[in-house]
Amino acid sequence: MLNYSAALDLAFQALADPTRRAMVERLARGPASVSDLAQPLAMSLPAVMQHLAVLEASGLVRSQKIGRVLTCEVDPGALSLAERWINDRRSEWERRLDRLGDYLETLKTKGASNGQES
Amino acid sequence: MLNYSAALDLAFQALADPTRRAMVERLARGPASVSDLAQPLAMSLPAVMQHLAVLEASGLVRSQKIGRVLTCEVDPGALSLAERWINDRRSEWERRLDRLGDYLETLKTKGASNGQES
Repeated sequence: MLNYSAALDLAFQALADPTRRAMVERLARGPASVSDLAQPLAMSLPAVMQHLAVLEASGLVRSQKIGRVLTCEVDPGALSLAERWINDRRSEWERRLDRLGDYLETLKTKGASNGQES
Repeated sequence: MLNYSAALDLAFQALADPTRRAMVERLARGPASVSDLAQPLAMSLPAVMQHLAVLEASGLVRSQKIGRVLTCEVDPGALSLAERWINDRRSEWERRLDRLGDYLETLKTKGASNGQES
């Protein structure tokens, strides 16, 4: 079991390549054999297998041999991990903006009531 | 302006490093100077500047010099882009599972009504 930070390293690293993202996009629509995955990629099978190995090491994809066919599918755990990390940052950033907005509103209200008083 | 795929490459690549994620985590709580960013990292200022350059190139962070201080802040656009890509994949995967669940339910119902008929 990878620790949280190492798991994020591998997931983001795996997603930083357009071929591997295309493979995940295909697998999000359903399981596929390696040949199915390779078919739209204009790439040799060994090259596809290398990308698959990176995706498997990151936990984004898992594969199993059924008979003679290696079938791949998305493993949603690592995808959720990466999504949650980004989401947490964005939420934090937005909450900060909200607080800043509230604070500016308070200043405006104060300014207006001071104006009335003078 | 980067194209969509190149922008995702850079964003995920930038997030694939624990130091850069720590910098984004810090900046999600509010803008900071480079010295503030460097302070908890036990790293030389030039090393921090290099990580900052990667974050800036990816569009995740922007910085501006105010007087003599280089102040950095999160740029939410690239973060949203990366989040949306992952979210789209997860949604697609979940919709597929839902459809599969519905289909299995139909089979069960059919099986039950066939059972009653026989």
